[in-house]
Amino acid sequence: MSVIEAIRWSDDGRAVRIIDQRRLPGAEVYRDLRSVEEVRDAIATLAVRGAPAIGIAGAMGMLIALDEAQRDGIDPMSHLRVAHEIIRCARPTAVNLAWAVDRVLDAAEAAHGDLRTVVRDEATHILDEDRAMCRRIGEHAADLIPDGATIVTHCNAGALATGGIGTALAAIYVAVEQGKRVSVFADETRPLFQGSRLTAWELERAGIPVTVLVDGASASLMRETKIDLCIVGADRIAENGDVANKVGTFPLALSAKHHGVPFYVAAPSSTVDPSTKSGEEILIEQRGRNEVCSPFDTPTAPDGVGVYNPAFDVTPAELITAIITDRAVVRPPFHFA
Amino acid sequence: MSVIEAIRWSDDGRAVRIIDQRRLPGAEVYRDLRSVEEVRDAIATLAVRGAPAIGIAGAMGMLIALDEAQRDGIDPMSHLRVAHEIIRCARPTAVNLAWAVDRVLDAAEAAHGDLRTVVRDEATHILDEDRAMCRRIGEHAADLIPDGATIVTHCNAGALATGGIGTALAAIYVAVEQGKRVSVFADETRPLFQGSRLTAWELERAGIPVTVLVDGASASLMRETKIDLCIVGADRIAENGDVANKVGTFPLALSAKHHGVPFYVAAPSSTVDPSTKSGEEILIEQRGRNEVCSPFDTPTAPDGVGVYNPAFDVTPAELITAIITDRAVVRPPFHFA
Repeated sequence: MSVIEAIRWSDDGRAVRIIDQRRLPGAEVYRDLRSVEEVRDAIATLAVRGAPAIGIAGAMGMLIALDEAQRDGIDPMSHLRVAHEIIRCARPTAVNLAWAVDRVLDAAEAAHGDLRTVVRDEATHILDEDRAMCRRIGEHAADLIPDGATIVTHCNAGALATGGIGTALAAIYVAVEQGKRVSVFADETRPLFQGSRLTAWELERAGIPVTVLVDGASASLMRETKIDLCIVGADRIAENGDVANKVGTFPLALSAKHHGVPFYVAAPSSTVDPSTKSGEEILIEQRGRNEVCSPFDTPTAPDGVGVYNPAFDVTPAELITAIITDRAVVRPPFHFA
Repeated sequence: MSVIEAIRWSDDGRAVRIIDQRRLPGAEVYRDLRSVEEVRDAIATLAVRGAPAIGIAGAMGMLIALDEAQRDGIDPMSHLRVAHEIIRCARPTAVNLAWAVDRVLDAAEAAHGDLRTVVRDEATHILDEDRAMCRRIGEHAADLIPDGATIVTHCNAGALATGGIGTALAAIYVAVEQGKRVSVFADETRPLFQGSRLTAWELERAGIPVTVLVDGASASLMRETKIDLCIVGADRIAENGDVANKVGTFPLALSAKHHGVPFYVAAPSSTVDPSTKSGEEILIEQRGRNEVCSPFDTPTAPDGVGVYNPAFDVTPAELITAIITDRAVVRPPFHFA
């Protein structure tokens, strides 16, 4: 099984190598980001996406800044601070990105030895930690996947979103490594089609049987086909176990409940935010109308109509069978501290 | 309020005037179908769609056949029989189409007076009966819509699908005629976008506030916004009240149930099939992969993956608050005879 590596150092160690996710599923194109500008653009235009992957790209981009400074003969620390600001603002709402570039800058500011080594090591640590985190989530969650399982997932919580083998999809990859036979149904995930474009692509590439369907069809699927479990990622998990994830997750969980299908959430323990008491407190980002009304620049609705386009929804804890993190498999009643 | 008329006689009475639904929502283009060929093509290519509207178009097309025969100096009855076969096969699975053209041919075969008058009157009856049926559904269902209601609907069960003011949307049109203030959220309805392309278009044209959303967002909508009711159409209703309708209806009903929102189905009484005991017996048509994988000819999934694309789903009777037909408002327990 060959799981896609969404981000790594280039062979010469002087560029950030990413798979360009804008080209998927049509073409598997890799790009070496060799300037801060290129790193910023790759993040801003979603060539690299998924909170962990964005953070890693940003952190690794800080090394590119140092090389740029050396090439152009400018002060490395001051250029690093400029790069930090540029990259940090590539996607202003990505908490992970700010966290990752802050961490590299802090390490650089505190550096005693060779600055390049410090920055490279810190960025590499962030990548390696993410890989290890994915692996642990996968190992915990794979225990919940029986041999021969048929699984529904939503959006992309896979290798393409992380530095490692993903979160929800990590469970599937590890189960397959363990010799289990698994087949997957991937909701297409409107409005941005991450399920059909990305999840289906990375699973097919890994040789795992995958079928795509429109989001409204998962309920029929559960009625007609034996579905053993659902597993999805999470953007934020509240203290009481309510989960914010890509819009469409909540109706999938309702359908799973109706059909008696276990519904699992797999996410880094850093996704848990104990200061958020429940899903009620989670502010949901409303996104632009074009994602809904002009997919692929084709108008699907009259110009004048309103658009309701929340990026995420909240799945209430009572619909969730277990939450799997890199630390543990947690079952209800949930009380995250 | 101006409700779109999807199909009627042209001003000279010698053509079938339709609005070309392939051009919506971008352009409001009317076409006069003046040959059997044009009628067949309009039905086959979905320029006219919706079971009642297709049947009406077919029936009216039979008059065009007679005029064609006169123009070309061929035997009217034999050309009518040829036209009947051609039109009937334009969409082989449309039961309504076969029923409507059979009815006109039967009337013609039994005709004593002027053949053209008999055929024109029979086709006009079919149109008028459909209009009256829509109106009665609307009047029954409007009683269930409170002033100030916010309503969710799915797919297009509107004027564009019928010869009149629709079925589910008839309820909304009549409520608005009665002076009630109503606003509507229209699920976009993947894979073919009938909600955003057609429902949003005809409601906006009628001056009714309408907002579109992806199908996966309706559950969030019910959580965040006060939704007073859902109303949808039906393709088939079983004896026990299970309802087959466009895929995505079932998860909408699950969400309505979860949020305590009434869920109504509005449909012609001819949609009820007492010989189908329950939804278990309804065979669901599986449609082609391109609707899911290549919306607007843009690939959204890798070539090799499987596709699950049921046209309809079955909403179990226990999720339905009432079924409204042209005859009555029926509440559970449902026992249609």
